[in-house]
Parts: sequence; structure tokens; C-alpha cells
Amino acid sequence: MGSMTGSVVVAGCEWLEYDYGPALVPQDRPASFTMWRYRDLLPLPDGPVRYPLPIGGTPLLPVPALRQEAGTPRLWVKDETRNPTTSNKDRATALVIEDGLRRGIDTITTASTGNAAVSTAFGAAAAGLRAVIFVSLECRPEKIAMMTQAGAWVFQVPAGYAAATDLSRDAARAFGWLDRNTGANPVTLEAKKTVAFEVWEQLGRVVPDVVVAPVGDGPTLVALDKGFDELVRCGLATRRPRLVGVQAEHCQPLVRAWQGRTAAPADLDPAATAADGIAVLRAAIGDAVLDAVRRDGGAMVAVSETALDDAVGVLARRAGLSAEPAGASALAGLGSAVGQGLVDRSETVVLLVTGRGKAAAGPPDQRRVAVVDGLDEVAQLLAGEETR
Amino acid sequence: MGSMTGSVVVAGCEWLEYDYGPALVPQDRPASFTMWRYRDLLPLPDGPVRYPLPIGGTPLLPVPALRQEAGTPRLWVKDETRNPTTSNKDRATALVIEDGLRRGIDTITTASTGNAAVSTAFGAAAAGLRAVIFVSLECRPEKIAMMTQAGAWVFQVPAGYAAATDLSRDAARAFGWLDRNTGANPVTLEAKKTVAFEVWEQLGRVVPDVVVAPVGDGPTLVALDKGFDELVRCGLATRRPRLVGVQAEHCQPLVRAWQGRTAAPADLDPAATAADGIAVLRAAIGDAVLDAVRRDGGAMVAVSETALDDAVGVLARRAGLSAEPAGASALAGLGSAVGQGLVDRSETVVLLVTGRGKAAAGPPDQRRVAVVDGLDEVAQLLAGEETR
Repeated sequence: MGSMTGSVVVAGCEWLEYDYGPALVPQDRPASFTMWRYRDLLPLPDGPVRYPLPIGGTPLLPVPALRQEAGTPRLWVKDETRNPTTSNKDRATALVIEDGLRRGIDTITTASTGNAAVSTAFGAAAAGLRAVIFVSLECRPEKIAMMTQAGAWVFQVPAGYAAATDLSRDAARAFGWLDRNTGANPVTLEAKKTVAFEVWEQLGRVVPDVVVAPVGDGPTLVALDKGFDELVRCGLATRRPRLVGVQAEHCQPLVRAWQGRTAAPADLDPAATAADGIAVLRAAIGDAVLDAVRRDGGAMVAVSETALDDAVGVLARRAGLSAEPAGASALAGLGSAVGQGLVDRSETVVLLVTGRGKAAAGPPDQRRVAVVDGLDEVAQLLAGEETR
Repeated sequence: MGSMTGSVVVAGCEWLEYDYGPALVPQDRPASFTMWRYRDLLPLPDGPVRYPLPIGGTPLLPVPALRQEAGTPRLWVKDETRNPTTSNKDRATALVIEDGLRRGIDTITTASTGNAAVSTAFGAAAAGLRAVIFVSLECRPEKIAMMTQAGAWVFQVPAGYAAATDLSRDAARAFGWLDRNTGANPVTLEAKKTVAFEVWEQLGRVVPDVVVAPVGDGPTLVALDKGFDELVRCGLATRRPRLVGVQAEHCQPLVRAWQGRTAAPADLDPAATAADGIAVLRAAIGDAVLDAVRRDGGAMVAVSETALDDAVGVLARRAGLSAEPAGASALAGLGSAVGQGLVDRSETVVLLVTGRGKAAAGPPDQRRVAVVDGLDEVAQLLAGEETR
């Protein structure tokens, strides 16, 4: 019982007591485990890290109840929902902004409809930067509300998501802003590869047999591949894990490409899946995903909406983990991979759980939302605004 | 730039390269900082910790942009939203369940309408225990949905919240379950006091001048008092901080008691505040709260709904932190305390941000929800169910 000695009642409240002395608190400083641990493998100049939010160092959970139910005694969950805005996007946001803080850049931009935009908005707020997010007209109000709650500007582009991405990248070039667009900035891969380093260290400097990860635009999986590859190149590991990429059956362009099959219209219907975070028709770095999976001896698998829904429930009931459908898709994908004989239940398998659901605190702040067609309108709307 | 040497293109994707070697990854094991660090000051027998979720070790954020806006150069935010279910309740849940795991108890119960219930449901799921939650009929469906999503049983008690608490405590005694009710189990204070130890260590073994914390039932503030008191008794500190407790103007029984004034009906209307997490009419350990604030030289302050709403917005826009109104109330309370001359802007002040908003994944699972009046019905409903 530690050094507990008994109890007293203080103002009607029972206080346990101990044999008090200075040795009861450890003398070493409590160490924080963040992605900056791997700074020698990041494009990060010397000097103190300025980004104010702790990022990464997320737990690798042993999930005892889930292991028992799934019959997978060496299953682990890498819980990326423990990042500041509850998704793995925070790693990329942090490294891009850290670069900006050092270079004195005061604005960051991205096109996104989801976790990357929320991560960018809150990360910029924490660092005192301005965030300018480009979305399509279809972007849901509650997501826009999350972005404006953190003070971001949100520009809706009528020509659609691809046009929003183009406009964001054009703005970054024209105005000298930080470009956090997925697949456009190699720094995002650098940041996300730290997940591989963490998993390897958390397993006791051991490479798992398999890592299962959601695939939308592709950087999450490609970054895992690069991270494990670098461990091999450092002489710290002798092999990479097989990577299994997961897409929803309703939006599985890369699964079909992996299978060498033509995607049917029903395979390319992003609005039909609850896993909006991975419902990407034209992956930003799809070729790199297929290349990584091929070199690793891995695979691409598709999962049904029922399997996604079940995965969300099982993670909650058996791992105590609240995940959004895209975030839980790795568990659904493991079921699919085991069913196809791609993974054996006795292997050491790591599921990457990438994000959880978010609650907006109210409606969007319409003073920071506008429909735009081009850069001129963007410049006009931002003119005169002091940088936040 | 770390050891970066250049870049290559892999499958259309730019990969940065480094001067690879084993020294690029630190050789020490990455340390995890959790509340178990303080086990010598917890009622915890020797042996490995069995609770599977990492708890505590939450960041103390320097909040540079917020400091600048608020004119408070030594302001810190203790971000308890980084716990597994995004609130400080997870500390108490973990220590109660750890005790149960060691004693072979398979069920935990609490009455709660909010964060404590969600924390209990998910914590029990992670540990393979059954959670039985008692709520009033007024408990909102989305909160019940969070609880059943994690597999908890939810019993609605028509006689109201006080009766729900009585029934939960009766059930714990009758059936030998773990009792996680706020104020009933001294272990909950023991767990929550670790916040004080962490703040002290994170400031470099320095006691802050002031800690501002939300007050509903009272354990969060009383536990801070006990934690700092124990640092003094251990000979590690020479004083305690002043504690400032915050309630909403619409539900401020303890503020009125502190002022020695009779509470008007408008001061006792819990449904009128957005800060539901601290809207408690009869605090479980209110006397202990007043006693702690008095001994510390602190105070109790009330905050308006406008101030709460502003605090949520400022935390998002200036600290990159998404908090629910009760969770953000410490920032509103700081404004009130500064306005009353209770706190000086130049002091070292720590705000305890206790929780963020949560999103349910769907409707409640009605198979695990029932209206009950007494223990017999509870026993009948649970009979035959295998422990999860």
C-alpha cells in the first residue's frame, strides 16, 4: 500500500495518510515522450522546439480484453487519438508549424474536410499563427464550426475539393504561407513516420509482423513504410513489417488497383461510407501506397460498412477506446486480412487507430467563412486583418 | 537539420534522406509519465499495475498566445483533456478499477450524468470489467449513448439523481461491486491529488501562487489541496498555492456559502448553465471545499454564461485547446478573480482545464438501458448475464 498508514477525517472527508518523506516522490524529472525525441531523423535545425503542444509519444495499448475476444494474443493498438486534436494529423501539423515558427511565417494553409483541417486550425491557434482552410461547398457545418472555433479562416470553393486544394497551394506560393497539403509537403511524411519509430521502441526495439493502417490520401501508410525503412537503414532493424492498408468497400480505388481490377461505380462512392476520413477518390500519393505495400509483402483490403460499425463498437467495448469509423477501420481491416489468410492470429499485429469523433461547441462563426473562386478574393478578405 | 543529407523520389513521393546510423535514435527507453509515478503516495500494493490505459502525466502547457492576450506572463494550463476519455475523471476511475483488478471484483458502479460515467464505462471496458451506471430520467440520450457504446449498463431512476446515487451505493454494498461514487470513495481523492504532484514537478519542483479549478461536487479542488498539503508534509514544499474554486452564476451554492450569503433561487438553477459538469446543487463534499479554500487563503468565484462562452472561445483561439464549458470555467474564473483583486496578473497561475466535449457514435443501445426503482430489478436485469 505504498507507505499508507491510516486515515483522518478533514471537514467531513476521509483523507488517507502516509509515512510522509521526500523519498515518496521520485527524484528524476518526469520525462515527456513526444515525437521530438526523433529530431535527428527530422528536418529540424538545432535549437529549442517552439511548437507549444506536446505531440506524439502516444500509447501502444496491450488491449487485454480485445485480445481475448479476437483470439489475437499479440495484438496492439497504437492510440493516435491521444494527440491534441485526437488524430495523427497533429504530427504533420506540428512539424510544418515548427518550421514556420523558425522562419517567421505567420500563416498556414491546407485544403481538407476533416481531421487535417481541425488539426491545422487548433495547432495554428496554439502557436499564434493564422490558419486559412479551403474546403468544398459540401463540407459539413459542424466541421467548419470546429475550424472557426479555433479562429481559422474557412474558404469554400464552389468548383469542388480538387479546386480547393489547387487554391490552397496557389495561395501558399503567392503569399509565402506554410503549405500543409497532404502529399504536397514532404515534411508531413517526415512527421508521420515517427509513429513507426515509436511502435518499434514501445515493442522493445522489435519490428512487429504486421501493421494495419487506414488509407485515404496515403501519407499515413507511406510514412510508416519510410519510418521502418529508416530503422533498417540505421542498422537498428533487419526487416520491415508487412503493411496492410484499409479502405471502405464504398470507396476503394487503391484496393482495386492493388488487385489489378477495374473499380466499379459502387467502389467509388465516397458519400456512401461512414469512414469519411479515408473516403478519397484520387489519393494524393496512391502510387507510393501501392509501392510500399508491394515492397513490404503487405496488402490492401476493403471493409464493409457493417464491419466498420462493428469495429467502432468493439474498440469501445473491449479496448475502452472511442474511435471514429475511419479511425477504427484498421480493426475491421484486420478481420478482413485474417479472413483472406493474409495475417495469422498468432502474429504480432499493430492496429493504427488514427482518430476519434469530435464535438463542435456551436455553429460556425460566419465572420470567418466565405465562398471564394480565386486568390484575389482571398487576398481582399484577409487584407487589413492583423495577423492573429 | 538533424542529419538530413538530401532527398530522393520514391514512387512519385519526395523522401528526405539522412546520414543513417544507429545513433540517430536515442538509446534510452522512452519513459512514459503517468499517475503511477506517484505510487508511493497512493493506496496501491506492490506489484505491476494492471489497469491497461495510461492515465495522467498530462501536459502543463505554456500557452504563449493566451499569455500575451491575457497579459499574464506566468500563466499555465494543466490540460486534463489529454486523459483517455478526455477528462480528469479518468484518474479516479483508474485507481478504483486497479484496486478491483487486484481484488478480483468484476463490476464497478457509479451515479453520474456526465464525465465520470463516461470515464467509468470506457475504463471498465478497457479493463474487462462490467460498468453499471445509475442516472436520472433527465440524463441526455447522447450521454447514455456514450455509456452504452462502451458496453455499460445504464439504469434510469425516476426518483431523481440523489436516489440514483443512493441506489448505486446500495448496489455496491449489496453485490460487492466497486463504488466509484464521487465523495463516497476516498480513493477518488487519492487519484485526483496526483494533479498537484504533476504541476509541482512540471514547474520544476515549484509551487504555483494560484491554482484555479472548477467546483461541482468538490473532489477536484479538495484533491488539489490534499496533494499540495502532502508535498509540504513530505518536506518537498514549504507552502500550498491559493486555490480558487469556480462555479457558474446560475448554480453557485458554494460561492454563496463562501460569501456567507443566502443563495437566491437564481443562484441554484443547474439547468440554466452550459457548464453542466459543475452544475451541482448539493456538493458531495462542499464543506471540504470551503475548508480547503479557507486554509489556503484562496477564494470561490462565480462566472456568467457569457464569461464561460468566451473562455471556451479563447482557449480554442489562443491555446489551441478544445474544452467544454465546465472544463473552460477556470479561465473564466481567473478573469473574475483578477477583477476582484484576488489574483494578480503577474503571479504564477495554473488553470485546471478538466474536460472537452464528446461525440457519441450513435443512439443509445436500448438493450442495456432500463428504468428501475430498486435493487431487485437491477439484480433481475443483470441475472444470467455473463460478466463481460
